[in-house]
Amino acid sequence: NIIQTRTRIESDNPTSVLLRLPSESELLNYHTKQLTGRDDPPKMASSTVSFIIIIITTVLLPSLSSQLSDLFPSNNPPPFLGKHSHPIKQPNHHQQYRYETRYFSQPLDHFSFLDLPRFRQRYLINTEHWVGPSRSGPIFLYCGNEGDIEWFAVNTGFVWDIAPRFGAMILFPEHRYYGDSMPFGSKEEAYRNATTLSYLTAEQALADFAVLITDLKKNLSAEGCPVVLFGGSYGGMLAAWMRLKYPHVAVGALASSAPILQFEDIVPPETFYNIVSNSFKRESSSCFDTIKNSWNALRSEGQKEDGLKQLSKTFHLCRELTSVQGLSDWLDSAYSYLAMVNYPYPSNFLMPLPGHPIREVCKRIDGSPAGSSILERIFNGVSVYYNYTGEVDCFQLDDDPHGMDGWNWQACTEMVMPMSSDQNTSMFPAYDWDYSAFREGCQRDFQVTPRPRWITTEFGGHDIEHVLKSFGSNIIFSNGLLDPWSGGSVLKNISETIIALITKEEDPDWLVEQRATEIKLIQGWIYNYSKKMKATFEI
Amino acid sequence: NIIQTRTRIESDNPTSVLLRLPSESELLNYHTKQLTGRDDPPKMASSTVSFIIIIITTVLLPSLSSQLSDLFPSNNPPPFLGKHSHPIKQPNHHQQYRYETRYFSQPLDHFSFLDLPRFRQRYLINTEHWVGPSRSGPIFLYCGNEGDIEWFAVNTGFVWDIAPRFGAMILFPEHRYYGDSMPFGSKEEAYRNATTLSYLTAEQALADFAVLITDLKKNLSAEGCPVVLFGGSYGGMLAAWMRLKYPHVAVGALASSAPILQFEDIVPPETFYNIVSNSFKRESSSCFDTIKNSWNALRSEGQKEDGLKQLSKTFHLCRELTSVQGLSDWLDSAYSYLAMVNYPYPSNFLMPLPGHPIREVCKRIDGSPAGSSILERIFNGVSVYYNYTGEVDCFQLDDDPHGMDGWNWQACTEMVMPMSSDQNTSMFPAYDWDYSAFREGCQRDFQVTPRPRWITTEFGGHDIEHVLKSFGSNIIFSNGLLDPWSGGSVLKNISETIIALITKEEDPDWLVEQRATEIKLIQGWIYNYSKKMKATFEI
Repeated sequence: NIIQTRTRIESDNPTSVLLRLPSESELLNYHTKQLTGRDDPPKMASSTVSFIIIIITTVLLPSLSSQLSDLFPSNNPPPFLGKHSHPIKQPNHHQQYRYETRYFSQPLDHFSFLDLPRFRQRYLINTEHWVGPSRSGPIFLYCGNEGDIEWFAVNTGFVWDIAPRFGAMILFPEHRYYGDSMPFGSKEEAYRNATTLSYLTAEQALADFAVLITDLKKNLSAEGCPVVLFGGSYGGMLAAWMRLKYPHVAVGALASSAPILQFEDIVPPETFYNIVSNSFKRESSSCFDTIKNSWNALRSEGQKEDGLKQLSKTFHLCRELTSVQGLSDWLDSAYSYLAMVNYPYPSNFLMPLPGHPIREVCKRIDGSPAGSSILERIFNGVSVYYNYTGEVDCFQLDDDPHGMDGWNWQACTEMVMPMSSDQNTSMFPAYDWDYSAFREGCQRDFQVTPRPRWITTEFGGHDIEHVLKSFGSNIIFSNGLLDPWSGGSVLKNISETIIALITKEEDPDWLVEQRATEIKLIQGWIYNYSKKMKATFEI
Repeated sequence: NIIQTRTRIESDNPTSVLLRLPSESELLNYHTKQLTGRDDPPKMASSTVSFIIIIITTVLLPSLSSQLSDLFPSNNPPPFLGKHSHPIKQPNHHQQYRYETRYFSQPLDHFSFLDLPRFRQRYLINTEHWVGPSRSGPIFLYCGNEGDIEWFAVNTGFVWDIAPRFGAMILFPEHRYYGDSMPFGSKEEAYRNATTLSYLTAEQALADFAVLITDLKKNLSAEGCPVVLFGGSYGGMLAAWMRLKYPHVAVGALASSAPILQFEDIVPPETFYNIVSNSFKRESSSCFDTIKNSWNALRSEGQKEDGLKQLSKTFHLCRELTSVQGLSDWLDSAYSYLAMVNYPYPSNFLMPLPGHPIREVCKRIDGSPAGSSILERIFNGVSVYYNYTGEVDCFQLDDDPHGMDGWNWQACTEMVMPMSSDQNTSMFPAYDWDYSAFREGCQRDFQVTPRPRWITTEFGGHDIEHVLKSFGSNIIFSNGLLDPWSGGSVLKNISETIIALITKEEDPDWLVEQRATEIKLIQGWIYNYSKKMKATFEI
């Protein structure tokens, strides 16, 4: 492993110096006073390695099912969030995070005055380390993603780990239409049709966060307490957008693996699958080739008499396939998720996995017994992802491929992320992004027409560098370069306060170093906020 | 007239220097090159005195009808926009502004995916001076207010006057639900009930502007052309908010008479009527006293047998009163509007008026023939407002006091601006803001419940100074100190790029000086934008 952490903070940009970063000693001094009322520096809490970076590189997963439609025509909705990433309900942390669960009544539509039923937004809260309003104790708010908030909470160690040293309150509000935050009383009702789903949008979710935190601060007389936003993947996009849209609500955002540029024509649509493919090619070009060739083998096999039966046997499926589509989605998901969690150490966010999981996959593909068929090799490989512990006897593909899924709805409305698969550089079946076909799929499956240009109109995106430089501040875009989503994220420093942290996941120290930098930057935001508040009051 | 223009630009704020303002010579150089390709400075267009500042101090008008309810119980909806300010369709400008009228198809709800009919947004466009995309010609966008956009266009001379020297395109998009931009095909349908009206919100209007300008720029390959926002009163609030919410869409905003702080408890609710009252007291304390005493006289008269008949006669009404409420609203409107257009020269925005119109009103009130009753004096006074040209034989009060009016809806939903009338300092009937009564009125009249805290959650407001300083840039808050809305506006410089221009309207030169400063600041925004774009491309 080459040890080369590329965590850089450039400061060579003279035109847009928004805020001066405090010096180390200023920071120490400040925090010491904040937390202890004394002048000596507080002891640095020993930093438990945990999982913020893991969380933040997951969860949004496109699959090639629509792209595969040439090969495998299907009426499935386009499953952007991988169907095979069901949250693990029992976290493997020895450490238990304590929180209270509360509910907050939200308007279903913040931007119209239709007479609609309110809904209960769930949020998790921990105040045991909070130093309170009198000492302007910060509030750490994790922007809930497209899933059960408890899953994110127990897998976001970073926030829990650093809150005590900041004297911070911790808040995990859940995203509407996920987990226990269902409009219309139940998931069944909320997901009934396009009308009931229509308020599942990012703008509404951001407004939920803004209303919740404003109300909470008012009730606690904590208006002067700075809010710091956290989020990964889609939640990272929300954190960054929140900073742009509600600058009065939070002082800064740590947006991890947030592909805010994965829209329209901003980045090439091949980016995602190229990065995934390169992660395999880097380990072994024969592994890459085997996977690339497997799609044709899959198709040929499926077309044979008894082919589906044979495939079901080869892949140890619990139920016999009715088409190869489900199987191809299942493989696609495995490769993409593997690329997202391809860490040098064992992890357990999506699945229990060894360190360097792609290396393991390729070892099994390349090292299958002589005479193994291409599909047998593939099965051996993906078993690393789906069955590393060896406990699975047979595999369940998605039970309900037609079921309405929240992220699918979001992908079919606002979150239109064009995806292609290059015939040369990608190991997935070649596919050119076809918006018309995509739109028709959404109309067919959800009775909704996407607005593919809305996100960039509402949040910007084109010319992001200039826009962020001039008008944004206090955002950390944190990325692993091997993360397939990094291609759609912000990868260079925009200004002194809009920072891109880029790390190579091979480096065993990357996590520790990245976190140290993040902590320092967050301290800077809070320090500057407090300094300005003071200056304002003194005027 | 004391000549004392208080147009200040402070630059003593070291912590939040967002952008360096260019020097005079840099600016001249830049604009010369932009417009002529030559190096000598362009001739300054001779500045026709026109009406931006007049527009910008009008249009939002609360009246005391709900406040009067103690005195004059009424079932009227609270008419926040004065009912007596019908636009004058024939502008008195010798100069005719040329524009094309176009329509743009907008989603009715930008923030949900309900299957709703789109609507046609009208916009006026003039490109004759635009130097085009190749020379990054600016786009001047006036944020349409709560009324027919043509009325605002012909009364916003400033934008027309300065566009040529900037080589700028001029755009006047209309606000949804006003003028010719009606959802559901007609005003009748759009205003039918709370459901059809529910998409009349500021956020939707801002999104309309963003979608329109984004589409237009794309179609013209003008993505690199900087957009400058203009707006007055409610439109000024929209311009300032647009700058905060869509920083990627425009480089700066001139927000005139924009009471973005007239919400919740940010400024005292007495502010508006105190400023109106002071404008009368300043001219004559006996005039102030007469008006202050007239409300009781009005009530006593109305309670007499034949009192309403007598009042109708005294005030030359075309139709006999059925209650004193309508008359009291009519008087209230006159005083408030007079305070808003109390300029030292004749104007013709709301009504044809002499210079110093309040002075004229008080002259007539104080100078009525000996033996005139208090109400006869009042009639003589308000005739300056309602009948300065002497052409009116009898006065029509509002024909449809129960009619649904767009601004009333907005006031009953988001735009909840608490208004009180202090028993000592106000010449209007004493009234304490009563949110419960207000809410009940809205529920009764519109079947809608206001969200009085939403605007400050969505756009900020509390602690505005700190927020704007840290997170905003390039906004001019332009105010006349005598403007009753100035109390709810931003009255001091926040940073080097968030500027408050405050003028005393008595100064005959205030308009010219204020405009010169505004032009210089706008030039700075455009200059800085172009410099940054260049720097970005060079990286």
